[in-house]
This record gives sequence, structure tokens and C-alpha cells, in this order.
Amino acid sequence: VTTERLEAFSDGVFAIAITLLVLEIAVPGEHTGGLAHALAAQWPTYLAYAVSFFIIGIIWINHHAVFSVFERADRTLLMLNLLLLAWVALIPWPTSLIATYMREGGEDEQVAALVYAGTMAGMGITFSALWIYATRRRRLVAAWLSDEQIRARTARFVVGAPLYVVAMAASSIAAVVSVAIIGVLAVYYAFAAGGAALHASEVDGMR
Amino acid sequence: VTTERLEAFSDGVFAIAITLLVLEIAVPGEHTGGLAHALAAQWPTYLAYAVSFFIIGIIWINHHAVFSVFERADRTLLMLNLLLLAWVALIPWPTSLIATYMREGGEDEQVAALVYAGTMAGMGITFSALWIYATRRRRLVAAWLSDEQIRARTARFVVGAPLYVVAMAASSIAAVVSVAIIGVLAVYYAFAAGGAALHASEVDGMR
Amino acid sequence: VTTERLEAFSDGVFAIAITLLVLEIAVPGEHTGGLAHALAAQWPTYLAYAVSFFIIGIIWINHHAVFSVFERADRTLLMLNLLLLAWVALIPWPTSLIATYMREGGEDEQVAALVYAGTMAGMGITFSALWIYATRRRRLVAAWLSDEQIRARTARFVVGAPLYVVAMAASSIAAVVSVAIIGVLAVYYAFAAGGAALHASEVDGMR
Amino acid sequence: VTTERLEAFSDGVFAIAITLLVLEIAVPGEHTGGLAHALAAQWPTYLAYAVSFFIIGIIWINHHAVFSVFERADRTLLMLNLLLLAWVALIPWPTSLIATYMREGGEDEQVAALVYAGTMAGMGITFSALWIYATRRRRLVAAWLSDEQIRARTARFVVGAPLYVVAMAASSIAAVVSVAIIGVLAVYYAFAAGGAALHASEVDGMR
Repeated sequence: VTTERLEAFSDGVFAIAITLLVLEIAVPGEHTGGLAHALAAQWPTYLAYAVSFFIIGIIWINHHAVFSVFERADRTLLMLNLLLLAWVALIPWPTSLIATYMREGGEDEQVAALVYAGTMAGMGITFSALWIYATRRRRLVAAWLSDEQIRARTARFVVGAPLYVVAMAASSIAAVVSVAIIGVLAVYYAFAAGGAALHASEVDGMR
Repeated sequence: VTTERLEAFSDGVFAIAITLLVLEIAVPGEHTGGLAHALAAQWPTYLAYAVSFFIIGIIWINHHAVFSVFERADRTLLMLNLLLLAWVALIPWPTSLIATYMREGGEDEQVAALVYAGTMAGMGITFSALWIYATRRRRLVAAWLSDEQIRARTARFVVGAPLYVVAMAASSIAAVVSVAIIGVLAVYYAFAAGGAALHASEVDGMR
Repeated sequence: VTTERLEAFSDGVFAIAITLLVLEIAVPGEHTGGLAHALAAQWPTYLAYAVSFFIIGIIWINHHAVFSVFERADRTLLMLNLLLLAWVALIPWPTSLIATYMREGGEDEQVAALVYAGTMAGMGITFSALWIYATRRRRLVAAWLSDEQIRARTARFVVGAPLYVVAMAASSIAAVVSVAIIGVLAVYYAFAAGGAALHASEVDGMR
Repeated sequence: VTTERLEAFSDGVFAIAITLLVLEIAVPGEHTGGLAHALAAQWPTYLAYAVSFFIIGIIWINHHAVFSVFERADRTLLMLNLLLLAWVALIPWPTSLIATYMREGGEDEQVAALVYAGTMAGMGITFSALWIYATRRRRLVAAWLSDEQIRARTARFVVGAPLYVVAMAASSIAAVVSVAIIGVLAVYYAFAAGGAALHASEVDGMR
């Protein structure tokens, strides 16, 4: 399995997981007070769709940026990538869970937020492990990547996993706090630092 | 992320969204008067399938035509494309919504049409924004594309977004008017003008 | 849109439609007489899965064989291909319909068979139209394909569409007759003639 | 159809089947004793998701390793591959079946395990048949693969099919025994021997 084939397969899983999110948005059946009311009442569903779509999109962008610096794959990388994909493909489920129970509130809402944050933590820890495995003693990285560049990206990676665990703990305070931490992390990985991705300047120059 | 990878990922989302539409067509369960009757009664579902399949197909064709004139991608383009895909992947939901409530009529039908037109407006505005961002001061376009060609395509793009908003407003008159405007726009982008796509003559000469 | 991009997008739709078929196989819920009984009772579902999987697979094989002789695409080809994909992506629905109503028998069974055969007829007629459009006066075919080869393939194509219509008519006699005709046609296109595909000898020599 | 196109299409089916697994994980509706309880009660669903995700991933890895040693495809290989994909695409169904009935126990649990093991047996036998067909008298293999390498891989393949049949028989003792055998086989194909895949040393050196 070449890294190219690995990326094509991973792309497929990302594209499907991101598109399956729409299946969690229900078409209201029996309802009182008009369809407009029924649609407005399920606002957490739209929010969850938007947030999870955005998050999977960011993971996909960073996944490519990461694999573009690997020059070969070994069996362990295959397995770590498979584990990462298992977390990504799971995302539609906690998304649906939190969308359902944010409407209910109470303790169930906190449990849903815990599961959502837990899935993100699982994803984040696996992604960090994959990066560290591949770059340890320059195991799989291309020659053109400097040691300094590796260190800078490792730093950006390492910040994510513990914060996802903080988001899990925060779910015992309020679901909203938990979700807010995850949202801020997503924006951080998308814009501020680019996660394990190249710096904005590097991406700009890419073909 | 190269524009090629970006297109491959986008292709995946388009292909999945277009194929998920079929899940909205129900197999009639309990019914009186025969299966033929039950199948005939859900005619709006078939219409909605056909229209949405056609629309996603047209967006896909124009998406490729647009990206074929870009010679590189930057982070903002990635984000705008992700937002565009979020609208496209959403389409099966308003499709199911309008198919369900066109059978019911009344105010709910108008709400469903509003949501359908609103999704198309969101898609159209995002697509226009993506085009304008990428072509502004020739930011990401290939050298072989003349300024005149850019202007001609911008004109074709710009016509869509306000008309989708008109389709939203028209839903307050009747769902049918709203859907008709969207249908005419789809045919326009498919045949008459080719939307942001190349002219028919240019496509004919493409490999 | 190049023919390569067209094929990649079509591949995506084929792969998704063929994999969505599994969603039509139910996990028995409440039941009496044991799970083994409940599973055995839904045998038409397994048959329908196998037949439809095989049919979509054959269409995919022939789709590639056909597009391998085209050297370019025009807008009409894009539209005909989109229409073909709309029929292919629809297949999971009549598959589920016939699987449900073959268990019931009577007139509903015949209606289900009519819809199944009708979907295949729509697909077959569209595929023939696509082939005839593209090969008329050698419009889009590669130079290396002889006129004789075109004629031989056209003959194999043309035989399908009317037989699918016969299968539709046969549904008024019995659903089984209708399904049998479709099954024989699938085997014909798979083995005997290769449909619009290359002859077995040609495929054998392909890389 | 080239082996490259064959692999791309197969990749699509693998990616979709593996991602559809998530649809089998339910969001608990009405429940007593809190969401945490309801989620804990459906633990077999998570186990089934993890095991099936891992198994489809391993099959995908081995599929690529196998096709990388073929230098051409013929019609019989296409058909055998289509049959293999039919088994793979089916996996979400027995996964859901065993997840549902492991919670119930009793005879139904054994039937569910029988169907799960039977699907794996069908997949394993088809995969072995495909390998044997393609390598018999070096029919489709590349010149660089030695006869000894073929024999070594055949040996690793041949071990699987009978063990899957043993797993089927074991379901009459207890579902757990059956699932354990399948799990051990998956680990064997993933790590110990690499199934029909290249040895770990060979993969390490691949680009």
C-alpha cells in the first residue's frame, strides 16, 4: 500500500462520513403549531451538522498536510491510520447524540457532551500518536522536511489531545462549555496554526 | 492540498450526496387500494429525486469547470469550498422535506419550499463568493484565462444568487412558483449559459 | 470535464449505489419462532441483494468498457451520463420494493416487478442512447476503433432495451417471468457477449 | 477495465462499507435510568463496530497487497472480485445482527453468530478462490513474483477459509467462541502473517 493509495482510501472515508451527517437531520412528522415551529425546535441538529461538518473538513485538510510529508508507509502507520479513520467515521453518531439531547437538557445532555468530547479526544490522541510514530527519529518523513519543521508541527499536535480531555471533564459542568472548547480547538486547527498542516504561507505556495 | 486532491475529495462528496437521494424514496408499507395507488400517491418524491439529482449533477459539472481554471489553492479557498460542500451535502434533507410536504399542501408546503430555496440560495451565494474570491485581481486563476473570460463568467455567476433569493420570497406566494424558478435556473446553468462553466464550444473541445 | 474525471465521478456513484443495497436488508425485530425462522422468511431480500449487486457490477464493467473508447466528452454526453447515473442510483429502491412485495404475492407483486423492470428499461434505453449519440458519425470515439467494431457493439446494445420492455410487459403475467428475463439479460451482458464491453478476448489482453 | 480502475472501484466499496457501519449504532430514544445507562446497555454495538471496522480494514490492506502482484485482469477476475465485494459490502448487516442479538442471548445469539461467521466464510473462500485463480500457472501475476513467493502466500490464504467454517460450527457451542476465532484470524492476517499481503519487511520497503 503506497501513501497515495492510503490517502485515496482515507479521502473516501472522510467524504462519506461528512456526507452521512445529513442523515441525522430529521424531516418532522406529526407536529402541532406548523412546520416552521417543528423545524425551529430542532435547531441543535443544524448546529451539530455545521460543527461536525466543519470539524471533519479540518481533520481532512490536516490529514493531507500530514501525509504529504511522509515518503513511505509501514504496517504500523496503516494500523494507526485505520484507527484514526474509525474515530472519524464514528463522528456522525455522537453528533446525532448531542443534537438529540441538547434539546432535553439535564444530566443526559452532559452525558451526550461527554461522548462527543470523548470521540474527539480519541481522534486527537490517535492523530498525535500517528504523527509522533512517523516522525520519531525521522522514521517515515521525507528528506526535505527539516528537524525544526517537525518540532514545530509536533508542538501544534501535542496541544490538542490534552485539551480534548479537558473538554471531556468540562462536560460535567455544562455541555455548552465542553462544546465551546472543541469549537475553539477546531478554529485553532483551521486558521491560527493549521494544526499539523503547513503554515498558511506554505499552503499558499502549493500547487 | 493541491487543487487535484481538493477536486477528488469534492467529487466524493458530490457522488455520495447524489446517491443518498434515493434513501428518501420510501417503500410503501401498510396501504389500501393496491401498491400501484400507494406508489402513485408519492409522486412528489420522484419529482424531487429527479430535480435534486439534476441540480447536484449541474453543480458538479460547474464545480469542475471552475476548478479547471484555478492553478493553485489557498486556505481561504479550502474553507469556501468546504462551506460549498456543506450546502451540497445538505440537499437530500430539503429534498425529502419538500417531497413530504408537497403532498400535504397549505402553509407547511410553503415553509418546505422556503427551506429548499434557502438551501439553494446558500449554495449559490457560497459558489459566487468562491469564484469572486479566487478571481479577484487574478488571485488563483491560471495565466491562460483572459480578463474578459473571467468577467463573462462572473456575470453568469452573479445572476444566480439574487434569483435564488427571489425563489425564497416566491415561496410565500406558492411552493410551485418557488420550485419553478429553481428549475429554470438549473436548466440555465446546464444548457443556456453553462453557469461558471466553459461555453458549450469550449467544453466540446475539451479532452 | 475530461472523460477521466467523468469516469471517476461515475465510479463513485456506482460504488455507493452498490454498497447502499445492504441497507435494504433488515435486522428482524420482534418475532416468533426464533431468529432462524425470521431470517429465512426474508429470503427474497437476499436474492434481491445478490441480483441487484450483480447487475450494478455488470453495468459498471460495461460503463468502463464504453468510456474507454471515447476520446473526449461534450455537454450532451455529460447530460446523458448524468441521466444514466440517476437510473443506476435509483436501483436500491425498486430492489427494496420487489424484496418486500415478493413476500406478499398477488397484484402488488406484479406492480413491484413492473417498477423493477421499468427502472432497468430506463437504464438500458439511456445507456443505448448514450452509445448511439457518441458513436454516430464517429462523434466522440477514438480513432483506433474500427467502424466494424462500433457496429458489433451497437448490435449488442440495441438488443437490451426492447427486452427490458418485454420484461415490463411480462410482469402482468407473473413477477417471476419478469425477473427471469432481467436475470438472463444480466448474464448475457456479463458473459456471453460482454454487452457494449470489449469481447472477452480483448479484455483478457488488457492491462 | 485495468487493475488500477478495478482497485479504485474496490476502494470505493471498502470505504463506503466501513463508513456505513456507524449507521448501525443507535441513538437511544425513550429510556429509564439515564442516558449513561442506556448507552452502556448497548455495549455489543460498539464492540461490533470496532471489530467489523478492523476486519474490513484488514481485508482492504490485503486486497491491495494481492492486486499489486497482478499485472492484468480478465473477465473471470472481475467477476470473482465483484463477488468478493458483495461479501464485504454485506458485512454491516451481520454486524448489526450480532450486535442486536448478543444483548438477547439464547439460541438467537447463536444464529446471529452463525450468520456473522458465514459471511466471513463466504468472504474468505471467495478471496482464496480469487488468489488461486489468478496465480494458477502464473495466469495473471507479474514476472517479478517468484514461484516460492506465490506458494508462501497461497499457504497463508488457504488457512483462512477452513477456520471460518470452524467458526460457523463453533456458533452452535457459543456465539463468543465463534467471534473469538474470527477475531484471532483477523489479528493473524493483520500482524503475524500479513495474509496474502507482503511480509512486514516487504511492506516497510514499499513506497
